[in-house]
Amino acid sequence: MLDTLFNHKSIRKYKNTPVSDQDLKDILEAGTRASNTGNMQVYSIVVTRDEEMKKKLAPTHFNQPMATQAPVLLTFCADINRFNKWCKQRDAEPGYDNFLWFTNAVIDAMLASQNCCLAAEDKGMGICYLGTTTYNADKIIDILQLPKGVIPITTVVVGYPDENPGLTDRLPLEGVVHYETYKDYSKEDIDRIFAEKDSSDSTKALLEENQKETLAQIFTDNRYKKADNIHFSKVFLKVLEDQGFMNQ
Amino acid sequence: MLDTLFNHKSIRKYKNTPVSDQDLKDILEAGTRASNTGNMQVYSIVVTRDEEMKKKLAPTHFNQPMATQAPVLLTFCADINRFNKWCKQRDAEPGYDNFLWFTNAVIDAMLASQNCCLAAEDKGMGICYLGTTTYNADKIIDILQLPKGVIPITTVVVGYPDENPGLTDRLPLEGVVHYETYKDYSKEDIDRIFAEKDSSDSTKALLEENQKETLAQIFTDNRYKKADNIHFSKVFLKVLEDQGFMNQ
Repeated sequence: MLDTLFNHKSIRKYKNTPVSDQDLKDILEAGTRASNTGNMQVYSIVVTRDEEMKKKLAPTHFNQPMATQAPVLLTFCADINRFNKWCKQRDAEPGYDNFLWFTNAVIDAMLASQNCCLAAEDKGMGICYLGTTTYNADKIIDILQLPKGVIPITTVVVGYPDENPGLTDRLPLEGVVHYETYKDYSKEDIDRIFAEKDSSDSTKALLEENQKETLAQIFTDNRYKKADNIHFSKVFLKVLEDQGFMNQ
Repeated sequence: MLDTLFNHKSIRKYKNTPVSDQDLKDILEAGTRASNTGNMQVYSIVVTRDEEMKKKLAPTHFNQPMATQAPVLLTFCADINRFNKWCKQRDAEPGYDNFLWFTNAVIDAMLASQNCCLAAEDKGMGICYLGTTTYNADKIIDILQLPKGVIPITTVVVGYPDENPGLTDRLPLEGVVHYETYKDYSKEDIDRIFAEKDSSDSTKALLEENQKETLAQIFTDNRYKKADNIHFSKVFLKVLEDQGFMNQ
């Protein structure tokens, strides 16, 4: 178990070996065993295996090749729709169409997703989270036909690895863990915590390739730009409203 | 690994056996190996072991006994503060003070939390997620001294179990999984999916105890009431604004 946790690498190239129905079932069942809010399971998982559906989804994941190469995509959604329907059929008036329950449902969806990923990895498969899901949630809602009360939060691609990358770097533990209270970072702390990342060979290659002075600039100027972040924040907040999570 | 996933039970009673420093380190390290957005690790983990700190936090977790009984509390926070500071020290202008990055940071925090939980369970410990963290995020921010850019999302109690509960029920897999597109639930679907939950012995006992007609009413009238949900949604949205995640 610890081995699986410590050896996780995101896989971006997949063989066309299919995932068996039994393995998929085990993976999904592992997801449902995760902790969740009040045992209400306010999430749903949409499985994509059909080639046509993958092609429709591809642009929402910015046409990353793995999103069509991998045999299985799992889209994890915040879902109060099912619970609401149950309440209404049981003479109960649900009050979950608000931001608190968006957050609870995101938490549920993510715990289920991580269990699915670890189950897949334990079976020798690889996974990669696609952060593009929240960017294009509005389009994914249309394609997957998600009703009101349902918002896609993340997508995981699953399949057999066709590459064997090394572990990626992480900040030292002291960089992300605080004891008793949050000790805010001094200039020296930041320098120390990021020293390895700042000076690694892969960073040097990136700086050369992108003609930038610092790795941070690659994040702010190339990968995750302020204007894009603001645009997609607005789109996503509108999705929350349209899907009924912002009533007060 | 699959055993650990499939045997998860939330533990609400703990022995006073401490968690060793080495075990805690392994648990936290397992957390940092989780997938995260762009390998930016936009989360922090605050460890609470001090008895005085536990007492201060107790009311924010509605004085649930396990929150002071368990030897360790881990509060997982969305955190763009550290990344922002790094950007500013590296001549880069961060643009992460918006809702998209709140969501990304929640995703990161939750994947780290689930890895920590599974590592702890693999070591024979028990865990329980406290959903109270988002309810009282404003107060937890004060107690843990979280700066702008940091929001607590969930808290996990960790320790050695002093109870051995059975597995809790889950909806059947067909209740939470959809293939290719979301098939919205008919009246009959809801009846079928919730049949076991509606008619279980524990539900019968709860209905008797609470003098209610349906389990759903216990959720809407007792456990998670609309007025409370709306109140805590407003408080939490204000926390997002105050902590700098709603700039546009």
